[in-house]
Amino acid sequence: MDFENTSHTELSKLGEFGLIKHLTQHIELNHPSTIKGVGDDAAVIDNGNLQTVISTDMLVEGVHFDLTYVPLKHLGFKSVIVNLSDIYAMNAEPKQILVSFAISSRFTLEAVEELYSGMLLACKKYNVDLVGGDTTTSQSGLVISITAIGAAPKETLVYRDGAKESNLLCVSGDLGGAYMGLQILEREKTVFKENPKLQPDLEGKDYILERQLKPEARKDIVELLKHLNIQPTSMIDVSDGLSSEILHLCSQSNVGIELYEEKIPIDPLTYNTAREFNLDPTLCALSGGEDYELLFTIDIGDYDKIKHLPDFTIIGHITNIEKGRNMVAKDGTVHPLKAQGWNALLKK
Amino acid sequence: MDFENTSHTELSKLGEFGLIKHLTQHIELNHPSTIKGVGDDAAVIDNGNLQTVISTDMLVEGVHFDLTYVPLKHLGFKSVIVNLSDIYAMNAEPKQILVSFAISSRFTLEAVEELYSGMLLACKKYNVDLVGGDTTTSQSGLVISITAIGAAPKETLVYRDGAKESNLLCVSGDLGGAYMGLQILEREKTVFKENPKLQPDLEGKDYILERQLKPEARKDIVELLKHLNIQPTSMIDVSDGLSSEILHLCSQSNVGIELYEEKIPIDPLTYNTAREFNLDPTLCALSGGEDYELLFTIDIGDYDKIKHLPDFTIIGHITNIEKGRNMVAKDGTVHPLKAQGWNALLKK
Repeated sequence: MDFENTSHTELSKLGEFGLIKHLTQHIELNHPSTIKGVGDDAAVIDNGNLQTVISTDMLVEGVHFDLTYVPLKHLGFKSVIVNLSDIYAMNAEPKQILVSFAISSRFTLEAVEELYSGMLLACKKYNVDLVGGDTTTSQSGLVISITAIGAAPKETLVYRDGAKESNLLCVSGDLGGAYMGLQILEREKTVFKENPKLQPDLEGKDYILERQLKPEARKDIVELLKHLNIQPTSMIDVSDGLSSEILHLCSQSNVGIELYEEKIPIDPLTYNTAREFNLDPTLCALSGGEDYELLFTIDIGDYDKIKHLPDFTIIGHITNIEKGRNMVAKDGTVHPLKAQGWNALLKK
Repeated sequence: MDFENTSHTELSKLGEFGLIKHLTQHIELNHPSTIKGVGDDAAVIDNGNLQTVISTDMLVEGVHFDLTYVPLKHLGFKSVIVNLSDIYAMNAEPKQILVSFAISSRFTLEAVEELYSGMLLACKKYNVDLVGGDTTTSQSGLVISITAIGAAPKETLVYRDGAKESNLLCVSGDLGGAYMGLQILEREKTVFKENPKLQPDLEGKDYILERQLKPEARKDIVELLKHLNIQPTSMIDVSDGLSSEILHLCSQSNVGIELYEEKIPIDPLTYNTAREFNLDPTLCALSGGEDYELLFTIDIGDYDKIKHLPDFTIIGHITNIEKGRNMVAKDGTVHPLKAQGWNALLKK
C-alpha cells in the first residue's frame, strides 16, 4: 500500500487522469460481488440477475461552474444529469441518486431550494428516486457530490473495453456546443465586469447556451438501441471531449481507431460561433467536453439498422492497435489523436 | 415541487436537520426497488434476496477537520470509517466504497497519497473494495465525499423505526471520548499559535486522541449480535451525540424513552479530561458526537444474552410516547432530552 517516495510533486504535473491512475494502482478488489471497480463510467456490483451500476461525480464552484452566470436551478439539474449520463453510458437504467452538498453561509434557504428543485426536476424527468445524501456547511464555495445508482441485466451492460477491429464508432447528437456556450457566457461576463450597465448579448445563441447550462442525458439513445436490438460493444459518455473519450475506449479495448474529421457532427450554431471566436470548430468538438452525448462502437452487421437514423453519426471505425489512433482530416492528412481534454486539474 | 416562498432565510435558523427536512419534503419515490429513501442511516435498494444499503457523507476542511492537527492518513482512514459506520448501523456488511475529493493546488501528490493510503488502509481492515470515485480541484479547502455500499438479507436489516415499548436501549463501547480528544487538540492548537516553540502536551491522552483521530466502526458489534442471535429492533450510529441519536430513534419509532444518566458509559480518561476542562462529562457524551458507537434497541427477552457482555451497556428503556423522552439524572431528577447535537451548520 506504500507509494513510491516522490518527494514534492505538484499535482498539475500529473493531470487528473495521471493522478487517478497513480492513486488507484494499489487497489485490490476482494468481494466476489465487485464486478467492475475504477476505470469505467461506473462501478458494477453483482446482485444476481440484475447488476447494480454506481457512479459518482463532484462539482466544485469556481472549477466546474461559475455562479455569476449559472442559475442555481440549472446547476442542480445539470449536476444530476452529469451522473445519470454515466449510468446510461453503461447501457443501464438509473434508478436512484444520493445528493451531498457543502454550502457556505452566504447562501440563503431560498438559494438552496432553487438548487434542490433543479435536482428534483431532473429526478422527475428521468424517473429517478432521490434516496439520500448529506448536507453540510463549507467555508467558501459550493461543492456538490452526487452518486447515481442504476441497474441492468448482466448480459446487456456495456463496458469501455469491448471495442473490436472493424467495429463502427458512433456518436449521438452533436458535439462542441456546450463548450461554445461556455465561451459565450465567459465573454459576456468579461463585458459585464468592464461595464455593468451593458445587457448581455445572448441573442440567437439559445441552443449552445442550453447545451452548456441545461444539458440532457441520452436516455432516449439507450432506449433506441434497445428498440433496434443493437448491443454496443463499448460505450462511454462525452464529458471531457470526443478525443479524450475515444482514447479511453481504444486504450481499454486495446485497439486503434480511424476517425474522420468530416463526419464529426457539429451544429451550425456551434460552427459559426467557433468561427466568431477564431476557434477551430473541430477542435471544439474534440476537446470541448460537457456534451454528454454517448460515444459507442457497434458491430458492422448492425450498420443497416442505424444508417438512416438522424440520432446517430458514424464517425470512424476501429482498427488494429498497430495502425494507431488517428484522425483523417478534411484535407486527407492523418493526425494522431491527442487527449487534450477538459483537464480540471490544470485549470486554476 | 415548489417550495413556499420564504424570501431570505438564513440557513443557520433551520439547522442541519431542519434544512434536510425542509428540502426533502417534496421527494417522491417511484421505483419499486427503492425500499428506503432519506431518513435512516442508509438508503435501501431491493435486489431480491440481498438488499443493497447505500450511505454517503461529506467531510469539509475547516468544518469537519482541521489539517493543523489532523494527519492526512488519519483523515483518509476516518472518512471511510464514518461511512462504514452508517452501513453497520443498518446491521449490514459494507462491501464497496466510492471516494471523491476536491483538492486545492496547495496539496502535493505526496499529501494526496497520504490521504489515499489512509482510505486504502481502512478498506483493507474492513474488507471493503474501493470501486470508484471522482478527483477534482478546489479553489480553497479539501472536500471529501464518500459513498459506502453494503448488503444484507432483507430480514436482518435494522431501521430506525422499529423500537417498541419495553425494549431495552443499548450502546456499544463508551461515549464522549472523541469530543474530549477534539478539545485537547483545539487547546494545543491555541497554545501553539501563542507560542510556536512549545511542544504540544498530549501525554496520557492517547485513548481520547485516538477516538477523535482514528475512530473505528463497530463491525465487531454487528458480528457479535449475529453470533448471539440478537436482532435489534432499531439501530443508529452515534455520530452527532447520544442525545440526538436517541431522539432520532424515538421520533421515527414513535415512542418515548427513559435514559439513565448513571448508566451512560464514559471512560475514566474522558471523565477526568472533561473535569479538567470544567465540562460536564455526561453532557460531553450526550452532545459530543463522533463516537461511531452503535446505539440500538432489543427485545427484553434478549436481556440474558447480553447482560454480562462488556461490549454493551443497557442505558435505558423504551416507553410509551406519552411518557416523553427523558433522562433520569444521577440525583433522581428527570430532564427532557434535547438534541443539541454537533450541528455543523451552526459552526462557522
